[in-house]
Amino acid sequence: MKKRYLLAPGPTPVPEEVLLAMARPVIHHRTPQFSEVFKEAAELLKYVFQTKQDVLILAASGTGAMEGSISNLFSPGDEVIAVNGGKFGERWGQISEAYGLKVHWINVEWGNAVDPGVIKNILDKNPKVKGVLTQASETSTAVAHPVKEIAALTKKRDCLVVVDGITAVGVFDVPMDEWGIDVLVSGSQKALMLPPGLAFVALSDRAWKFHEKARSPRYYFDFKKEQNNLAKKTSAYTPATSLVTGLRESLLMIKKEGLKTVFTRHERLAEATRSAMEALELKLLAPESPSPATTGVYVPEAIDGAKFVKYLRDDMGVTIAGGQDHLRGKIFRIAHMGYIDTFDIIIAVAAVEMALKKFGHKVKHGKGVAAAEKILLKGYK
Amino acid sequence: MKKRYLLAPGPTPVPEEVLLAMARPVIHHRTPQFSEVFKEAAELLKYVFQTKQDVLILAASGTGAMEGSISNLFSPGDEVIAVNGGKFGERWGQISEAYGLKVHWINVEWGNAVDPGVIKNILDKNPKVKGVLTQASETSTAVAHPVKEIAALTKKRDCLVVVDGITAVGVFDVPMDEWGIDVLVSGSQKALMLPPGLAFVALSDRAWKFHEKARSPRYYFDFKKEQNNLAKKTSAYTPATSLVTGLRESLLMIKKEGLKTVFTRHERLAEATRSAMEALELKLLAPESPSPATTGVYVPEAIDGAKFVKYLRDDMGVTIAGGQDHLRGKIFRIAHMGYIDTFDIIIAVAAVEMALKKFGHKVKHGKGVAAAEKILLKGYK
Repeated sequence: MKKRYLLAPGPTPVPEEVLLAMARPVIHHRTPQFSEVFKEAAELLKYVFQTKQDVLILAASGTGAMEGSISNLFSPGDEVIAVNGGKFGERWGQISEAYGLKVHWINVEWGNAVDPGVIKNILDKNPKVKGVLTQASETSTAVAHPVKEIAALTKKRDCLVVVDGITAVGVFDVPMDEWGIDVLVSGSQKALMLPPGLAFVALSDRAWKFHEKARSPRYYFDFKKEQNNLAKKTSAYTPATSLVTGLRESLLMIKKEGLKTVFTRHERLAEATRSAMEALELKLLAPESPSPATTGVYVPEAIDGAKFVKYLRDDMGVTIAGGQDHLRGKIFRIAHMGYIDTFDIIIAVAAVEMALKKFGHKVKHGKGVAAAEKILLKGYK
Repeated sequence: MKKRYLLAPGPTPVPEEVLLAMARPVIHHRTPQFSEVFKEAAELLKYVFQTKQDVLILAASGTGAMEGSISNLFSPGDEVIAVNGGKFGERWGQISEAYGLKVHWINVEWGNAVDPGVIKNILDKNPKVKGVLTQASETSTAVAHPVKEIAALTKKRDCLVVVDGITAVGVFDVPMDEWGIDVLVSGSQKALMLPPGLAFVALSDRAWKFHEKARSPRYYFDFKKEQNNLAKKTSAYTPATSLVTGLRESLLMIKKEGLKTVFTRHERLAEATRSAMEALELKLLAPESPSPATTGVYVPEAIDGAKFVKYLRDDMGVTIAGGQDHLRGKIFRIAHMGYIDTFDIIIAVAAVEMALKKFGHKVKHGKGVAAAEKILLKGYK
């Protein structure tokens, strides 16, 4: 008998209420019944995106909305800046190149946030740059980039700031309209507490103007077509109905808890996790600009990180994530976003302590949990 | 947002597989389809009861099967011994008196196990005693009684040993046939990992002979009628079909894990819990003869135990049990039977540590968890 716990940076656990909503009999997608669900979900998304703009709902994973953001806003030959500080920053650049854009790569050491000054320099030297592509939270390195500062740089230029908020929207404060973010992308399987399968994207007025001029080829991800359909409470192509039904439920839960309360919870869980790892004398991957979505931790040198993560998953039932690319086998990542609370963090920390012991690492039982408990207690009256 | 964790000594958590089985469309109870489910569940119960006898399935809570055990085996005026070492021992005596039996009460201090020598003395002095009524595990005091020794005392006498195994069957080793237990009672909401609503009872050959002579009034709980119906793969009155469907599923899970493995798991979880509580310098209620089903712990004197348990439940989402009767407000009980594993114990211990802190008790964070981790690690290769 083994219980399973999901503490990976996506997919994240789905609340019972949402699972039950998705288990309801399938509604046909071209009916008034489903239109109401779709429209309500889209309205609730505005609350979570902190925007007055339409939030489009796509049957795709987050990468689909990222690709759509390139193909809907730019044309072959356009220049963009890609903040490449991890697996997903790299993806922005790769998509851009696939569409024939000219990419100014900013290679940021994994675990660091981008320096907005570097972006400013490139913008100053290349006045034709039409977009800055970045993550709000780089999932692969557990880093939060300074999106507010980056957005400010683009305001007096003919240049959009395009933000992958897949592990940021609903995780921490990324107010789209207030910060002047032009494109904000997210996905279902992170803070929105759903299985994978839905992507979301919202565009500023400036971005919609770019859309009018963009000549990249596109069909399935046609944002204007989706916006027109949304006005009619539907989507251009068959929507993922059960996921949208679940989405309405999870968004209602978020609204009930309150966005600020959700952010505070995530910050508390993140702080507890970092504090626990430091108490265990483990080195954080991103000590300077940690993302509230996930904590990256270096595995002790004598331990094979891939085996460590596998042991946690297969033997202890606790799924966390390992590292990607050159960090493979060197780090693990504990997520703390979405349907995650106090005792999930206790579980993750206790599991890490116990697994370290099993791998022969010198560790004092309970030391990480003790540090976590002290922070977690702040959440209780 | 608050997740809920159930660590009470009944009801216990129900596995997802069982919940899904119970969510299947209702089958009519007088059909071959349901008969197969009913029969298979009854067969699997023999494995868990460790008996060759029929195990009857009743739509009732455990108390129903206790009452049936009295009314089916004894007659008004019959003498029985009731081991009264807690709330449920008291119940044996109360049911017996309700049916006009003469009860020899053995009052055992709550937290202690009964001394078989005391039972032997009463039996020696009262040769007409026809039954010894006891718990295998007294849920209210977290004590395990010496059932094997008690059963041995009755073997050369015309006297049955009637055992409430509600928090024992499937929790720890109580081999009915091997120990010569005459009546073994259990319920659905403990180690069998189901919601409340089903009671089970098995009778030895000796007990069935007693049944023939017993003249107590009975109707719904007529064991012979149920046995006759079981032979026809059904029950006398409408069975609780969804619970029986879930029962088959949970019994298959237990059989797959293996009874000995289940017992070892419970013993490890119990040992970890006791070790954690001692590390926190809390006093155990039953240090001498602890039940592997649940651990009883004295609340520090300065703390109101009822408020403590309520805080854990309402503020932290962790449901454990308080004390009953004169132990009310003085103890709490953490259960570790059924669908409970390593990280449930970690959660319970961490929650107790954190709540103690909130109640102003001097406690070293992580000390209990550390002690638990050391024991729990034994369960991993």
